[in-house]
Amino acid sequence: MNNFSEPAAAGLETIRAKKPLIHNITNFVVMNYTANALLAIGASPVMAHAPEEVEEMVSFAGALVLNIGTLTREWVSFMIKAGKKANELKIPVILDPVGSGATNLRTDSAGEIIDKVKITVIKGNASEILSLKDVKFKTRGVDSVNAVEDAEEMAIVIAKELDTTLAITGPVDFITDGSRTCRVYNGHPLLSYVTGTGCTAAVVIGAFLSVEADPLTASAAGLAMFGLAGEWAARKAETPGTFQIALLDSLYEIKAEDLRKEARIR
Amino acid sequence: MNNFSEPAAAGLETIRAKKPLIHNITNFVVMNYTANALLAIGASPVMAHAPEEVEEMVSFAGALVLNIGTLTREWVSFMIKAGKKANELKIPVILDPVGSGATNLRTDSAGEIIDKVKITVIKGNASEILSLKDVKFKTRGVDSVNAVEDAEEMAIVIAKELDTTLAITGPVDFITDGSRTCRVYNGHPLLSYVTGTGCTAAVVIGAFLSVEADPLTASAAGLAMFGLAGEWAARKAETPGTFQIALLDSLYEIKAEDLRKEARIR
Amino acid sequence: MNNFSEPAAAGLETIRAKKPLIHNITNFVVMNYTANALLAIGASPVMAHAPEEVEEMVSFAGALVLNIGTLTREWVSFMIKAGKKANELKIPVILDPVGSGATNLRTDSAGEIIDKVKITVIKGNASEILSLKDVKFKTRGVDSVNAVEDAEEMAIVIAKELDTTLAITGPVDFITDGSRTCRVYNGHPLLSYVTGTGCTAAVVIGAFLSVEADPLTASAAGLAMFGLAGEWAARKAETPGTFQIALLDSLYEIKAEDLRKEARIR
Repeated sequence: MNNFSEPAAAGLETIRAKKPLIHNITNFVVMNYTANALLAIGASPVMAHAPEEVEEMVSFAGALVLNIGTLTREWVSFMIKAGKKANELKIPVILDPVGSGATNLRTDSAGEIIDKVKITVIKGNASEILSLKDVKFKTRGVDSVNAVEDAEEMAIVIAKELDTTLAITGPVDFITDGSRTCRVYNGHPLLSYVTGTGCTAAVVIGAFLSVEADPLTASAAGLAMFGLAGEWAARKAETPGTFQIALLDSLYEIKAEDLRKEARIR
Repeated sequence: MNNFSEPAAAGLETIRAKKPLIHNITNFVVMNYTANALLAIGASPVMAHAPEEVEEMVSFAGALVLNIGTLTREWVSFMIKAGKKANELKIPVILDPVGSGATNLRTDSAGEIIDKVKITVIKGNASEILSLKDVKFKTRGVDSVNAVEDAEEMAIVIAKELDTTLAITGPVDFITDGSRTCRVYNGHPLLSYVTGTGCTAAVVIGAFLSVEADPLTASAAGLAMFGLAGEWAARKAETPGTFQIALLDSLYEIKAEDLRKEARIR
Repeated sequence: MNNFSEPAAAGLETIRAKKPLIHNITNFVVMNYTANALLAIGASPVMAHAPEEVEEMVSFAGALVLNIGTLTREWVSFMIKAGKKANELKIPVILDPVGSGATNLRTDSAGEIIDKVKITVIKGNASEILSLKDVKFKTRGVDSVNAVEDAEEMAIVIAKELDTTLAITGPVDFITDGSRTCRVYNGHPLLSYVTGTGCTAAVVIGAFLSVEADPLTASAAGLAMFGLAGEWAARKAETPGTFQIALLDSLYEIKAEDLRKEARIR
């Protein structure tokens, strides 16, 4: 139990009661898995990227998730269009800057989205997050993992500068809105053997953001829920195929009461 | 046993003997799962959307499945190109108007496809189907479920007007070609916790249409087969991850004899 | 034990130690599954196709995998751009000419890629491979299987003409670089009931190519590893849903020692 466990549990109950629509403009690799993860926790996913419909679709949504894996310049423009509309309608926007820092296109695209859209939460690993503000820190690809601890001070500065909440995933997740910070200790090493688990963490944060107004709390709740699902899955599975299926099962099985007891947020 | 069980069973045997090629122009979310579902029942899937090849590819196919989830205007034009060629070659065409009624782009695109291509079977939920003919009925997204019963009379009118067969999915599926009607009682609530199950039902109908000339019978057979696979899967799995895998297993395991006995079509 | 078992085992150990980045420009159907397969064997997948970033991304990679399923002319141009850069940097390139021979677009695109990019290994079924050199041999789709044996002599000629290594998958896989040949006997019939297993074999070859300089050896190692995973999976699963998950598990579980003992390469 801690200050975050209660709102996390309450958020999960609200998600399951209201089944909020989560609008995703995301990469081809994870579309299926993240849609299944959102269904499993009780939300309603929709994937839609066409410029003619993103503004209309996002108007029905409880949150918008933007993910730049498998990006093109065209898709980035669709993300910005949807994001601006979400801003206008006060719908929270989550950005997953997949691979930012690895190529100029990704770093620039993440920067352009952040410039043009007010982002509620940015979820990434340390190298992705640090790449957002000219920090000299070169990532090699989408699966780079750097010690979260090393990046914490810089993250607080970046969160202030960008006026957003940063959720930095790693062995221990670190979340900051520039003034407050917290850490999530839930998780499991097998998560790194399934593609798109970072992207899935982002959509789970999105679901919590659709029902919880405080971005720090929603991020902590989402990462605790997702990490806990990893822990539950690892009790049933020791290999990544079975584990990825057990992870979906666990996202469905975990109840508010479980999250209240087992979320490790400090 | 009923009038449809025998042709359903015969159809399944023919699919497994002939392995018909099913050409899909479909959404990014479900491409992998629907391909696996088609393989599991014994058909041969191909996904191909390039304007330079859709006419050539469809000429090898036993059926063409068009699905507008994750649509763009460009993809809709490719669907129409493939559909026109299928019409010319008398190859049956199934349309899954995912999210029609939710956004103008989707409603307009479904309408444009129906205007330009003769569709053999349209598979959708009640709100999607009712959106096809200026019925004032607003859907919220791709997972809306409305009582099939409320829509039945309107569906009969729409089927007559469009001169097609409508397969409306819901807790009980309703199928009509404007003069005849039938209902399929197979299915399971866990299907709504897996993304793309509606899309998968459509490709299973496509496989039956490739071997069964009567669209009403093929639709009933496809929905019974798919719903029965849901029932079998639910005997092995109580959670959506395990269930989605068990569903593929069941599509492979169900034999003609099982379908003959357990299809509940009236 | 045989001449190839030892380098195959050594290659697997190196993959797991170095976690090479494998850059994929591939089809929408298999992106998720092939990424998971690469993670399972210990490599690091990245999917990236934007023309603005493919040259930069491939420069970090140990191998580049090009796969023309769900191709468009535009994507083929991105593949060529990435491939030319890989050539410049001496990074091995694997081509999976999915459906070449089935449509003119696919045959022409495979031909154009081969003309413009020096390909290290081409992996395909017999009809795909034979379509690469004006052999009169018409395939019907992506799942055509033809007796590998019939094609072996032609394959040796084609490998010489193209100055590449050909890995022809079938009940027995046949590999030739135009002067040497070998056969891989690992595999299981259930592999044909899962979509994208051919594509997955190609990425596993890609992982071995990133750590093994001889293309014939790397191809044999990759196909033996993948076929053996199919055998292990079939011990746990008799149906394609469970099998596809067990296949990922097996790619993770097989150790260098297992590959040394159970690879059947001659």
